[in-house]
Amino acid sequence: MQRLTLHEDRFSGNAYKVRLTASLIDVKIHESIQYEISKGGTRTPDFLSKINANGRIPVLQVGSDKYLPESNAACYYLATGSRLIPSDPWKHAQVLQWMFFEQSFVEPTIGTLRYWFKRTGEDNFSQEQQVVSSSKRESAETALQVMDAHLATRDFFVDEEMTLADAVLYAYVHLAPEAGLDLARWANVHAWCRRISNHSGFVSMDYRESEET
Amino acid sequence: MQRLTLHEDRFSGNAYKVRLTASLIDVKIHESIQYEISKGGTRTPDFLSKINANGRIPVLQVGSDKYLPESNAACYYLATGSRLIPSDPWKHAQVLQWMFFEQSFVEPTIGTLRYWFKRTGEDNFSQEQQVVSSSKRESAETALQVMDAHLATRDFFVDEEMTLADAVLYAYVHLAPEAGLDLARWANVHAWCRRISNHSGFVSMDYRESEET
Repeated sequence: MQRLTLHEDRFSGNAYKVRLTASLIDVKIHESIQYEISKGGTRTPDFLSKINANGRIPVLQVGSDKYLPESNAACYYLATGSRLIPSDPWKHAQVLQWMFFEQSFVEPTIGTLRYWFKRTGEDNFSQEQQVVSSSKRESAETALQVMDAHLATRDFFVDEEMTLADAVLYAYVHLAPEAGLDLARWANVHAWCRRISNHSGFVSMDYRESEET
Repeated sequence: MQRLTLHEDRFSGNAYKVRLTASLIDVKIHESIQYEISKGGTRTPDFLSKINANGRIPVLQVGSDKYLPESNAACYYLATGSRLIPSDPWKHAQVLQWMFFEQSFVEPTIGTLRYWFKRTGEDNFSQEQQVVSSSKRESAETALQVMDAHLATRDFFVDEEMTLADAVLYAYVHLAPEAGLDLARWANVHAWCRRISNHSGFVSMDYRESEET
């Protein structure tokens, strides 16, 4: 594989997805370039024209001039041909199902709530954040309930072994406590989190509270 | 391919994605089962236990007992092996990039606004809808701007021919006027919409105002 550079913010669960995926399949990310989203680092003219016109990280850079935004697309690219992506068409479809579920029902709920709680702080919430946070919390609880019921009869989301669906879901699900959600309420999800964190190739998120703004 | 049943609401752009994809590659959907989201048809115990625990349509049913929620996963499943999914790994990665972009920045902005305008009606907006609709509008405009700039030098999103990325993006982008956004402001997006609608295998959305609640 060509030289891999990850344009990221270590605080971002989406960036962690890419690091976790790479670690699980023993792929080396050669360089990390850090941005502080809250300080506009991903909205500079240079970033927008060269790295991602949508002004977001993470972006996986492959070689010197190929840039891939969207964390789940980056994870899939890295995991292509690995055991994380089943070759059976129906299992493959279910991996994508849970990856799109993650982008629609986990990242915008748990991920956004966590960002607001940790980076904005509840005392500084705008009117919109005040109004929206309770419905995001309800949606996060619904998503956790759906996942918990699914995991009642399974160790992993799609197959008997871990797939890419588990890796991308884990990134924000394991951060639910930082969004004010106690994972002990969803025992199957809680057990699944422990299962992932004990999996060979696992890497933890590695950001420290002290690094936060 | 096994017998295909689409659990859907004809009003849904997500359901249209699946119909458009099937039409483009000449795959027949044998049966359509209609639900009215606004009347709770997708939240019945039977639907939740059998079809989708997340209570959402569309769901692609394959054969008698396999159910695939998440429209973009269903589209990918149908299009596997077709010309809509490039075999080149980098092009494939970009198709997924735009499919995840669609789920994160198009469906929750244009799609949700359109649903609110058409099904709730601006006069009946809740406090949350009033507060959120203006930021959703801004996010929709940003997404359209990103797409417009991308299409300045290209006929389609990833390749010289249409891919699955174009099909899934078209579903809600072409409905932007129903979300109060005039596509004439984004000339490249506007021209791309015409290009899609003239493409061989294209099928229009086929819902009539008179069918709405």
